[in-house]
Amino acid sequence: MDFAYDARTVELREKLEAFLTECVHPAEPVHHEQVLAAGDPWARPPVLDELKAEARARGLWNLFLPDPRYGAGLTNLQYAPLAELTGRSPHLAPEALNCAAPDTGNMELLAEFGSDAQRDRWLTPLLTGEIRSAFCMTEPEVASSDATNIATRIVRDGDAYVVNGRKWWSSGAMDPRCEIFIVMGRTDPGSDRHRQQSMILVPRDTPGVTVRRGMTVFGYSDAPHGGHAEIDFTDVRVPAENLVGAEGSGFAIAQARLGPGRIHHCMRLIGMAERALELLCRRALTRVAFGRPLAEQGVVREWIAESRVRIEQARLLVLKTAWLMDTVGNKGAHTEIQAIKIATPAMAEWVIDKAIQGHGGAGVSQDTPLAALWAQARTLRLADGPDEVHRASLAKRELRRWS
Amino acid sequence: MDFAYDARTVELREKLEAFLTECVHPAEPVHHEQVLAAGDPWARPPVLDELKAEARARGLWNLFLPDPRYGAGLTNLQYAPLAELTGRSPHLAPEALNCAAPDTGNMELLAEFGSDAQRDRWLTPLLTGEIRSAFCMTEPEVASSDATNIATRIVRDGDAYVVNGRKWWSSGAMDPRCEIFIVMGRTDPGSDRHRQQSMILVPRDTPGVTVRRGMTVFGYSDAPHGGHAEIDFTDVRVPAENLVGAEGSGFAIAQARLGPGRIHHCMRLIGMAERALELLCRRALTRVAFGRPLAEQGVVREWIAESRVRIEQARLLVLKTAWLMDTVGNKGAHTEIQAIKIATPAMAEWVIDKAIQGHGGAGVSQDTPLAALWAQARTLRLADGPDEVHRASLAKRELRRWS
Amino acid sequence: MDFAYDARTVELREKLEAFLTECVHPAEPVHHEQVLAAGDPWARPPVLDELKAEARARGLWNLFLPDPRYGAGLTNLQYAPLAELTGRSPHLAPEALNCAAPDTGNMELLAEFGSDAQRDRWLTPLLTGEIRSAFCMTEPEVASSDATNIATRIVRDGDAYVVNGRKWWSSGAMDPRCEIFIVMGRTDPGSDRHRQQSMILVPRDTPGVTVRRGMTVFGYSDAPHGGHAEIDFTDVRVPAENLVGAEGSGFAIAQARLGPGRIHHCMRLIGMAERALELLCRRALTRVAFGRPLAEQGVVREWIAESRVRIEQARLLVLKTAWLMDTVGNKGAHTEIQAIKIATPAMAEWVIDKAIQGHGGAGVSQDTPLAALWAQARTLRLADGPDEVHRASLAKRELRRWS
Amino acid sequence: MDFAYDARTVELREKLEAFLTECVHPAEPVHHEQVLAAGDPWARPPVLDELKAEARARGLWNLFLPDPRYGAGLTNLQYAPLAELTGRSPHLAPEALNCAAPDTGNMELLAEFGSDAQRDRWLTPLLTGEIRSAFCMTEPEVASSDATNIATRIVRDGDAYVVNGRKWWSSGAMDPRCEIFIVMGRTDPGSDRHRQQSMILVPRDTPGVTVRRGMTVFGYSDAPHGGHAEIDFTDVRVPAENLVGAEGSGFAIAQARLGPGRIHHCMRLIGMAERALELLCRRALTRVAFGRPLAEQGVVREWIAESRVRIEQARLLVLKTAWLMDTVGNKGAHTEIQAIKIATPAMAEWVIDKAIQGHGGAGVSQDTPLAALWAQARTLRLADGPDEVHRASLAKRELRRWS
Repeated sequence: MDFAYDARTVELREKLEAFLTECVHPAEPVHHEQVLAAGDPWARPPVLDELKAEARARGLWNLFLPDPRYGAGLTNLQYAPLAELTGRSPHLAPEALNCAAPDTGNMELLAEFGSDAQRDRWLTPLLTGEIRSAFCMTEPEVASSDATNIATRIVRDGDAYVVNGRKWWSSGAMDPRCEIFIVMGRTDPGSDRHRQQSMILVPRDTPGVTVRRGMTVFGYSDAPHGGHAEIDFTDVRVPAENLVGAEGSGFAIAQARLGPGRIHHCMRLIGMAERALELLCRRALTRVAFGRPLAEQGVVREWIAESRVRIEQARLLVLKTAWLMDTVGNKGAHTEIQAIKIATPAMAEWVIDKAIQGHGGAGVSQDTPLAALWAQARTLRLADGPDEVHRASLAKRELRRWS
Repeated sequence: MDFAYDARTVELREKLEAFLTECVHPAEPVHHEQVLAAGDPWARPPVLDELKAEARARGLWNLFLPDPRYGAGLTNLQYAPLAELTGRSPHLAPEALNCAAPDTGNMELLAEFGSDAQRDRWLTPLLTGEIRSAFCMTEPEVASSDATNIATRIVRDGDAYVVNGRKWWSSGAMDPRCEIFIVMGRTDPGSDRHRQQSMILVPRDTPGVTVRRGMTVFGYSDAPHGGHAEIDFTDVRVPAENLVGAEGSGFAIAQARLGPGRIHHCMRLIGMAERALELLCRRALTRVAFGRPLAEQGVVREWIAESRVRIEQARLLVLKTAWLMDTVGNKGAHTEIQAIKIATPAMAEWVIDKAIQGHGGAGVSQDTPLAALWAQARTLRLADGPDEVHRASLAKRELRRWS
Repeated sequence: MDFAYDARTVELREKLEAFLTECVHPAEPVHHEQVLAAGDPWARPPVLDELKAEARARGLWNLFLPDPRYGAGLTNLQYAPLAELTGRSPHLAPEALNCAAPDTGNMELLAEFGSDAQRDRWLTPLLTGEIRSAFCMTEPEVASSDATNIATRIVRDGDAYVVNGRKWWSSGAMDPRCEIFIVMGRTDPGSDRHRQQSMILVPRDTPGVTVRRGMTVFGYSDAPHGGHAEIDFTDVRVPAENLVGAEGSGFAIAQARLGPGRIHHCMRLIGMAERALELLCRRALTRVAFGRPLAEQGVVREWIAESRVRIEQARLLVLKTAWLMDTVGNKGAHTEIQAIKIATPAMAEWVIDKAIQGHGGAGVSQDTPLAALWAQARTLRLADGPDEVHRASLAKRELRRWS
Repeated sequence: MDFAYDARTVELREKLEAFLTECVHPAEPVHHEQVLAAGDPWARPPVLDELKAEARARGLWNLFLPDPRYGAGLTNLQYAPLAELTGRSPHLAPEALNCAAPDTGNMELLAEFGSDAQRDRWLTPLLTGEIRSAFCMTEPEVASSDATNIATRIVRDGDAYVVNGRKWWSSGAMDPRCEIFIVMGRTDPGSDRHRQQSMILVPRDTPGVTVRRGMTVFGYSDAPHGGHAEIDFTDVRVPAENLVGAEGSGFAIAQARLGPGRIHHCMRLIGMAERALELLCRRALTRVAFGRPLAEQGVVREWIAESRVRIEQARLLVLKTAWLMDTVGNKGAHTEIQAIKIATPAMAEWVIDKAIQGHGGAGVSQDTPLAALWAQARTLRLADGPDEVHRASLAKRELRRWS
């Protein structure tokens, strides 16, 4: 149970902190201006490509990818503290480093389960950041937290598969540069419930694909993350070789994709909470109300102390989870992977809420990043399945110890 | 302490419920479509004017206004249950009835403190719903929860006053039909701290008035409420007769405006919570997860029960406050007016959060009203001063009983 | 929905407040000393009998009993504010007024369902406060929140019934003056599930009755309330005429007993919370830490304000419930009766916890009544069935509105 | 940041677990019986001495003491997981291992700051478990969370010191075998505020020492921990060589004593929470309500999952703190030492509360250890100063980072 940052992590953290300070934070208002000026939330602000070029030049590229053939080859424990730092600027930093969801999970998936042809065609441009990708799993009609509910059909027809279904919350798909969708559907509804699903690659421009709209998240289009699309697949025909892995392997592949994604999300949330706490402290030191700076008011101090205590605990739990995944694998870390999904968004939501309260009207507005950070944290209590599902499952395992 | 709905209230509630069911709820998706189609958040969807005409025809107009010369002449206790009902569709119903903030408070203010000329010029078109108005009090640079901090200057110069300052969170001012701003500023900085402020009427088209931008609220422009503007007043010259009441009466007028506004907000919040609870119940009855409807899952039942318990308590407290205001006046109801400001937004936020969680992704998106309801409730923990200010003040009074 | 205190209530409140101030509060330390001196927790401190005599002389006797033949003939709404006042000294005041549970419910039960002979024999000495009584319902082996689980058997044998079973949490039964037990058991296990139970009167000295021990509540024997006994009934033979009402009516009688008992408990809890808040305020005004009285520290002020806000809401809900019971009966008030059971103990627990925290070590010790008040409030989250059961049931009813 | 259990820790944990299973848990009911039979809470149940002999024989003795001359020589990180295990039976295990507070802190203090003579006279019999000791710091009249408030005077008079003052919450002092008190008082009120205090050894039988009474904790005498005494020191004369360290060193010595004590308390709390969670799971698996075991009810599962998530986080934070103390010292671990004081009692209180709720009446009674565990956890939110003091101080340090 050694969570110490090793030499490589320390070095990368220093480089990343410098990049954040020198490039990303100054780019935040520029990005905001460029988006406003474009008038189109889905337009691509040029500053982002500049950041990407700079990150690549500094060797801060594809850090998330554990496969050394394609990425930095870091362990989960090495990457986690870097993911945390990107959470301090979650709308820019992850993509600037080519470490943004859902591309990260999709690249891992292609690296691990894709055929050579699939990797050449799609992994390569994803690794260079030329295109983006989406992961189409959740469906509006069913409780998708139970993956076996998925209703989209993928039916073999000659040398092709035909896809029919509706997906939503396909994150990233509103970005016009998003060219490839990884779609989960049922190939064999008669099989065992965890062997019915498969994943298939569907290029965005395939006939029958209709991106209907972007889902909003508390009023945000979430454009910096490529939005969240609702997509119709109507008799969408793709070559049979677009299937990822074997028929029936969809559920297993989804599970494999899950663990590292959870770590990334949770560490970013910790970075988000740290950012919020910093903003709260700075505000508290400078804002005077009723004759005293907020920093001298007991209630604000309680928020600050309690935030620190909660952040520390959550970080340790995520690091332990990363360490477990590195040492005993995703299966062995199952309880902890669920635990961080339960604990971390709730912690971040709490901390950011207090920072908002300390900022008054500015806190809920566009003048601080806090409201957008909050909306992200809140949504993560639902993404990957609502917390309640994870708590029920974790409890079952706990109960099994005593039965 | 009699909170029973009297005959007039019962009759108006029935009429209002019919109007909501027959007109407002069906108009909600139409409104949404018209706004999307317009492409401009500040464009006025025609459906709203149709609703206003209909409400007026049904005798559901200016119900909030206690002065029978201008409005329905209801007591706070009579109006409160009607305000609750409008909270079930808070983006449409209040304005449809010409009972939307901040016009309500502004009309009360003009009716009570305005000169005849001021009433002719501004109250009349507000009463007919032709124009809208804004109340410009909060400032970005100071903690406005302490009204004595206000920095905007209103300086006498011959037969005019000259206004200089910056305001924000001027709700309603982004609506192009908003023609008049009631501005609070300091006329006599040397006077006693509660006698330094005055209010003055500033027509929107006065030279020197610049509406800079709309503040967002968790990503929402809050366009149905006319947004929340940041406004510069630079050497804005208005006739001396635009002053409301006497010089130095601004603080007292603001206080008078406060009580009924709090009741309205809080009762609408209760309606919002009721709406959220209804949506949660309906969802729980129809959505199946892990083989059972949500309605059979213990955690969801806890949310529902706890929501009901919290709503009931908050409603009673608001009704008691309304009754107190009617019987002993705003001063005598001071503790309760603060108590509902503390209790009700927090209650509504909690209830709506659970409804969101029960809806999964739909809950945070545009497909339910929940996320927007939540953003409103959350913001009301800050509007009129953060809860913490009210708690500190309420506690002081409680302590005084024992010292 | 008129909760105003009528003239009789106002007058009784004044008399009761005078009694508390002049007699009960001064008796608290005396009682404490007498208990310590006796060395036996079940010994009867003489001061209590003095208080009873005085209360009776002042016309403050059997106020709880709505039947004017036996008691004060007050409605629930009239009695509730009096019950609240007794909560300010919950270890002495209720019994001093002969208004202590479980005698109150037992007297109501005898007044309403008892035969003339039963009333003569048991109601009369209970009304004069000569003896006490216990209600034996809960059983250690089954989840007694579901009354149909009750396993104790009451079997007809000639002109007698024979009782076999084990009860616990028979409150009051450790008091040596407790002479009569009302025992709930199954007479007809083959009948409909709500018609299987009956109630029977078992004098304490009947052969086969063994009071095994007193249950403790967080270290307290709860001696002032007569403790909570575990009792064995082994082949206990009582005359057939000891049955209360008809065979099979036990469940219905228990339900009838429930509503008023809930009101009494909840109003006492509100009095307990008021007492705790008063103690917190007094402490905060006098205790200096880090150079300032606690009363000037923001966190303590938050506790005080939040306590006041919570108490007000809970009181209104209980008063509404009392009013409903008076006007539409227990059935019509079912939701509210559950709601107060859920809301009030949790509120009181919260408020008392803050008062404890504000007192430091004194708060958890015998030097303030706070720890004992807390233990009572906490226990009421379990008594009459855990809150979770009530929430599940309330939610079911709420869901039914929308299905 | 390596928290792994090393070989020695693993071995000691195994031995300790065996001892708990084979000896301590079976002794719990015996202990309970012996205490009941004795009729005197302060009588010493023989089973405890048997446990002590057995622990010593098994090499499980004085594990807490880092000084290898006197104890096991374990680091904080090595001892913490052992302290956790003792928390599973907190009324017996710590003393059985001679690792019970306040003796642990007192032995450390004597080992580190005592003179040879002091060690011979008092440390030796403490190490063998023949006598017990108390630490007399808190005073009833002042907010002792600020140690500089302490009012007890220690005045030099010839070759003696004379002690005057009143202490309370002197834990352990009600145990008749408690022979020595370490008393903190002011020797030089004119000096710098952290140099005014000294510590002095006062044998219990010194004239002028009066143990007035035991403080109760939610109705518990806390006899297994030797109770918590209120003690008068009236003109108590002890030889000058009884001073521990130099005059004016009292505050510094108290600080040194603090860190390890915090670790011990917090790790025991984690063990207590684990015990409560185990009891909740076992109960949930066997108790049927409304037709299903509690284990299948969603609300209970939420409790279980949330308990696990909270325990894990708190444990990691305590282990990190232990590791920090071992590597950078108490000073460097200051923030974390405060953080665990804030986080751990609140966590344990929450977990134990849920376990109580799951047990119904049994949970608050003597039939489970839960209510007593709860009372301990609750009290630790106050002991060593209320959480609020620690939060204020932690916040100050956090704010300093940004000012």
